[in-house]
Amino acid sequence: MLRTHTCGQLTINDLDKEVTLTGWVQKSRDLGGMTFVDMRDRYGITQLTFNSEDNVVLRSQARELGREYVIKVSGKVIERSSKNLKITTGEIEIKVSRLEILNPAKLPPFLIEDETDGNEEQRMKYRYLDLRRNPVRNNLILRHKMAQEVRRYLDGLEFIEVETPVLIKSTPEGARDFVVPSRMNPGQFYALPQSPQTFKQLLMVSGFDRYFQIVKCFRDEDLRADRQPEFTQIDCEMAFIEQEDILNVFEGLIRQLFKNVKNVDLAEVPRMHYADAMRLYGSDKPDTRFGMQFVELNDIVKGKGFGVFDNAELIIGINVKGCSHYTRKQLDELTDFIKRQQIGGTGLIYMRHNTDGTLKSSVDKFYSEDDLQKWSEAFNSESGDLILIMAGNTDKVRKQLSELRLEMGNRLGLRDKNVFAPLWVLDFPLLEWDEENERYHAMHHPFTSPKPEDIALLDTKPGEVRANAYDMVINGTEIGGGSIRIHDRKLQALMFKHLGFTEQEAQNQFGFLMDAFEYGAPPHGGIAFGFDRLVSIFAGLDSIRDVIAFPKNNSGRDVMIDSPSIIDQKQLDELKIKTNL
Amino acid sequence: MLRTHTCGQLTINDLDKEVTLTGWVQKSRDLGGMTFVDMRDRYGITQLTFNSEDNVVLRSQARELGREYVIKVSGKVIERSSKNLKITTGEIEIKVSRLEILNPAKLPPFLIEDETDGNEEQRMKYRYLDLRRNPVRNNLILRHKMAQEVRRYLDGLEFIEVETPVLIKSTPEGARDFVVPSRMNPGQFYALPQSPQTFKQLLMVSGFDRYFQIVKCFRDEDLRADRQPEFTQIDCEMAFIEQEDILNVFEGLIRQLFKNVKNVDLAEVPRMHYADAMRLYGSDKPDTRFGMQFVELNDIVKGKGFGVFDNAELIIGINVKGCSHYTRKQLDELTDFIKRQQIGGTGLIYMRHNTDGTLKSSVDKFYSEDDLQKWSEAFNSESGDLILIMAGNTDKVRKQLSELRLEMGNRLGLRDKNVFAPLWVLDFPLLEWDEENERYHAMHHPFTSPKPEDIALLDTKPGEVRANAYDMVINGTEIGGGSIRIHDRKLQALMFKHLGFTEQEAQNQFGFLMDAFEYGAPPHGGIAFGFDRLVSIFAGLDSIRDVIAFPKNNSGRDVMIDSPSIIDQKQLDELKIKTNL
Repeated sequence: MLRTHTCGQLTINDLDKEVTLTGWVQKSRDLGGMTFVDMRDRYGITQLTFNSEDNVVLRSQARELGREYVIKVSGKVIERSSKNLKITTGEIEIKVSRLEILNPAKLPPFLIEDETDGNEEQRMKYRYLDLRRNPVRNNLILRHKMAQEVRRYLDGLEFIEVETPVLIKSTPEGARDFVVPSRMNPGQFYALPQSPQTFKQLLMVSGFDRYFQIVKCFRDEDLRADRQPEFTQIDCEMAFIEQEDILNVFEGLIRQLFKNVKNVDLAEVPRMHYADAMRLYGSDKPDTRFGMQFVELNDIVKGKGFGVFDNAELIIGINVKGCSHYTRKQLDELTDFIKRQQIGGTGLIYMRHNTDGTLKSSVDKFYSEDDLQKWSEAFNSESGDLILIMAGNTDKVRKQLSELRLEMGNRLGLRDKNVFAPLWVLDFPLLEWDEENERYHAMHHPFTSPKPEDIALLDTKPGEVRANAYDMVINGTEIGGGSIRIHDRKLQALMFKHLGFTEQEAQNQFGFLMDAFEYGAPPHGGIAFGFDRLVSIFAGLDSIRDVIAFPKNNSGRDVMIDSPSIIDQKQLDELKIKTNL
Repeated sequence: MLRTHTCGQLTINDLDKEVTLTGWVQKSRDLGGMTFVDMRDRYGITQLTFNSEDNVVLRSQARELGREYVIKVSGKVIERSSKNLKITTGEIEIKVSRLEILNPAKLPPFLIEDETDGNEEQRMKYRYLDLRRNPVRNNLILRHKMAQEVRRYLDGLEFIEVETPVLIKSTPEGARDFVVPSRMNPGQFYALPQSPQTFKQLLMVSGFDRYFQIVKCFRDEDLRADRQPEFTQIDCEMAFIEQEDILNVFEGLIRQLFKNVKNVDLAEVPRMHYADAMRLYGSDKPDTRFGMQFVELNDIVKGKGFGVFDNAELIIGINVKGCSHYTRKQLDELTDFIKRQQIGGTGLIYMRHNTDGTLKSSVDKFYSEDDLQKWSEAFNSESGDLILIMAGNTDKVRKQLSELRLEMGNRLGLRDKNVFAPLWVLDFPLLEWDEENERYHAMHHPFTSPKPEDIALLDTKPGEVRANAYDMVINGTEIGGGSIRIHDRKLQALMFKHLGFTEQEAQNQFGFLMDAFEYGAPPHGGIAFGFDRLVSIFAGLDSIRDVIAFPKNNSGRDVMIDSPSIIDQKQLDELKIKTNL
C-alpha cells in the first residue's frame, strides 16, 4: 500500500507515530508561517501542517497544492492545538516531512462538498466527481451494506442465490422489452429480462426449494422522473409454502435490514386488504405514517338537493386535524391543487369545525346545522378540524382524494423521512380491465394464482376474482410485491385464455413453463423487492437516481459516456440489421 | 410451510414424532404387504412406509405413485429395520398415516439420478429436470457458497460492491459487443459490457478506494465448447496500491475460498515471470501440478548434421519419467497427437534412457553415445525415463510441446482434479503483434500500465515492453487476470496512439476516462476472476456449463425457452430497425 493509514484512522492514541497517508486535497489555508491542508479519502479527513520554520521549501510546495490534487505525505502524528471533536481524527494532525504529488487536478467544474453548486447536468456528466461527494458516496455504501445484509439473511435461511440468464426471450405480454440482435442466429433476437420470473419458477420445479438473486432487470418504458431503464430487484421464490410463509420470511428480511443497517426496531408489519386500502386511502400503496382515512358520506349527504353529491357515485372526505383556521385563499389553493391536470378533480367541498364549536361548510345553502352535525359525527371531528370532501366516480374520486390526503400530509409535516410505516397489502384483484385494448390483463403477471374459492368467478365476474397476491408498502411507496403462483398446467392455460392468448400463443411463449408443470411442480410463490427504491427509502431520498452509481437521464442516456451511440456499419452488417430512420 | 421437516432432517433422535414432509417420489418398491417410497427434496431422502395391515386403501394409493410425483405425507418417525448408514436419515422411516398428491408427474424423458441416461440435448431442453439431479444442483449450491464467501472476504477488507451499468457504449477495441437498439434514441445502440473496466476505474477516481462486483459480462464471440455469451466475473479494483498489494489481497481470497469451501489448505502461491512460463512450459498458464519442464537443447544438438535441429530456431524437450518402456506404437501415437491440425507439430524425436542404463534415440544416425550422454545430463534423466524432443519456430514449438506435456500429464495421471496448483504469472508483455491487422494490440487491455522502466522502449521495441500485469492460474487454467492501470492522461493517450487510435477516436471512445484522469486520479489497479471457471475447478469439472443454471449451447441458443427468436414487426418498427437477411 502507498499508505500506512487511511485519512479516517488516526486518533490521539497514535501520537508520535511516523505515518504515510494518501488522498485528495479538500482545502488548504495559510495562517502566519503555516499552511494547513485537509486531506480526504473515503474514510475521513486528516489535517496536515506545513511550517516555514521547519522546512521552507516543503511549505511553499504545500501552498501550491490545488483542490483535488492527489497527494502522498509522510510525517509525525501530533496533537492539534485547536481540536475538532466532530470527527474522529479531529484531535490530531500530521506534521508533514515529505510531500509527493501523485497526480495534479484541474479545477473541478463544481464544488466537491456535501452541498455542491453543480447542477444536475454537470453532476451527471462528471459523475465520477459527483461520486466523490460524501452524500452520494454514502448512499452507495449504504446500498452495499443493505445488499450484504439481504444476502446474509437469506443465506441463513438456506436460500440459494442462482444467476438466471440475461439474454432471454422476448414476450409481448407486459412492458416493452429491450432486445438484442443475435449474430449467430440472424433475424432473431434475445430480450433482456424484465424479471427472472419464469426462471425462478423453473428453479422451484427443479427442487431448489428456496431461491434468491439480487439482479438487474430491464424495461424499455418512457421514463418518468424516477424510473431507470435498468433497475435492480431482490428476487425470491420458495416452494412448499403458503402466503403466510412468504409474508413471515420477508417481513423478517425487512425488519432485519432496518435493525442491522439503520438500527430501527420495526414493529410487526400491519396487513390490509386491497379493498380496504382503496376504501380508506384511495390507493393500493397507502402512506400509513398518518391517519386521515377516508370517510364515505353517500348515506348522509345525498337527497338534500345538492346536485354534485346527488349525482355522484361516491362522496368521500378526510378530516384534517387542526386546520379549521385555513383561509379562503388556502382553501382555493387546495382546490387548484386537485384541479391540476395530473389529478383531474372537479371541485372541493369543505366544512370548518371552528374552535368555537360551530360548523361552517361551503355548501350551507343545501345543508342545515343538523346535517352538518351528522357530518361531524361521521368524521369524529373536533373543534379546530377541517373536513375536505370530494365527489364523483368511485375510482377517480378515490385517486383524487388520495392525492389531496398526501398533500395535506406534506403540509402538516406528517410524512417524516425518519419514520417508517411498512404495510402488507393483500388480496389484490387477479385481473384489471384494460380500457385501451378492451380486455383484461393480469394485475401482477399471468403466473399469479387466483384464490381457489374465486376460480369459479373467472367466467362470470373476472374482475372480482381475487389473487393470492401481496405487496409490501413503506411510507406510501410499493417496495415489493409477489404472489403464490399457479403450478398446474390446466389452471395456467385457463389464465392465458382469460388474458386473450390463443392456445398457440400460450404454447409458443410459455410452453416450456407449462410443460414443466407436468413433470412434478411443487406449490410455490415468491416476491420481488425494488432494491433501488428500498435503498432510497433507507437513504431518505425521493429519487432512486442517487442510489445508483451511474444512472441514466430521462431520455435513457448516460451523458458521461455518451451512450447510446451510433455503431459501426460493420457491426450492423454482421448482425444483419439496418436502421430504418 | 406445507411441511414440518425437510427430507434431510429427521434422524434417530426424532423417533415417535408426528411429522409432515413434502417432496418428490424418487422411487418405490413393494415388499410383501408393504410399499416403501423414497421421497426426495433438496435436503435429502427419507423413506416412507405404507403397510396394508394398517391401511389397505392408503397402501394401494401409495402403489399408484409414479416417479417424480410431488407428494405431502404425514406420519410417525419410526426406526428402520434395515438401516442405511450412508445417509443421515438412514436410520429412520416415516410410517405414513396421510398421503396427498400435490401434483402428479409425467414420466421424465430421462432418469433423475446421479448417473442419467439423458443425452446433452435432452438435458438442455428439460434443464429444469436436469437441475433436479444431485450433481447438477450441488454445483449450483457450491457456486452459491463461493459467491457468499467471496463477498464475505472482500466486505471484510472494506471493499464496496457497486453495481455498474449493463447498458453501456459500444467500443470497437477488443471482442465483439452485443448491442441493444435504443427506442428513445433511434439509430443509436447501447452495448452490453464485456467487463466493467472503465466504470471501476472511474470509481477509483471517485475515491471509492476498494470496489468489487460479481457481475455478468457479455461477449459476442463464436462459441467454442467451453464459452458462453454471458459469463460472470468477480471484478475488483483498489486505489493507492502497488502490484504486490493486489497479489496479496487476492491470493488471500483464493486461499480463503479453498479453506472455507473445500477445506483445502493452499500453500503460498508461487510466482513466475511470463518469460519463464513460456520458456519452461511453453504456456502463460502452465499446469504446475507436475514438473516435466522444458529443457532447451540448441547448444547441445546443433551442428551434428541433423537438418531438423540445425535449421530450427528452438529445440526443446521434456523428460517423461518412467516411460522408457513406451513401445514404438505408443510413440507413433504421440507423433500423431502432435501432428494433429489443432497442434500442428511436424515431428517428434525421442530418446529412451533404458532401465539397463543405455541411451537410445530415434536419431542415432546423427548423434553418438557421448552426444546422448549430454542430452541425458541436460534432462537429468535416469534409467527408465523417456525424453521427447521437438524443434521449430520458437513460439510454435513451445505451444506444441506444451500440448504434448499436458497429454503426457494426462496419460501418467499427473493431473489429479483433487490437487490444486495455483500460480501467479507476472510481467506479461504490454503489447502483442496482431498478424492479421498488422499492428500491435493490448495483451490485457489498453488501460494496462507499462512498467515505468520499459516506457522508453515503446517507440523502439514495443514488443519488449513489459506490463504491470498478472494472471492467476490454477491447474493450467487462467482463472483471473489484472493489472496496474494507467492513471495519467498523457500516458493513456500515448498507449492509444501505439494501439493505432487517432486522437479523435481515442477521445470519442474513451474521452470520459481521459478527462477523469485530469481531475485527480489516484494510482490504482485491479483484477477480475472468471467466476464460472473458478467454480468449475472447485467442482472438478472440465466444462463451465454445469456450473451455470441455464446455459446456452454452442450456437448461443437456449433450447429450453427457444431463444433467440423472431420478434414482432411492431417491436422492430418501434426500434426503427429492419432485419437485412
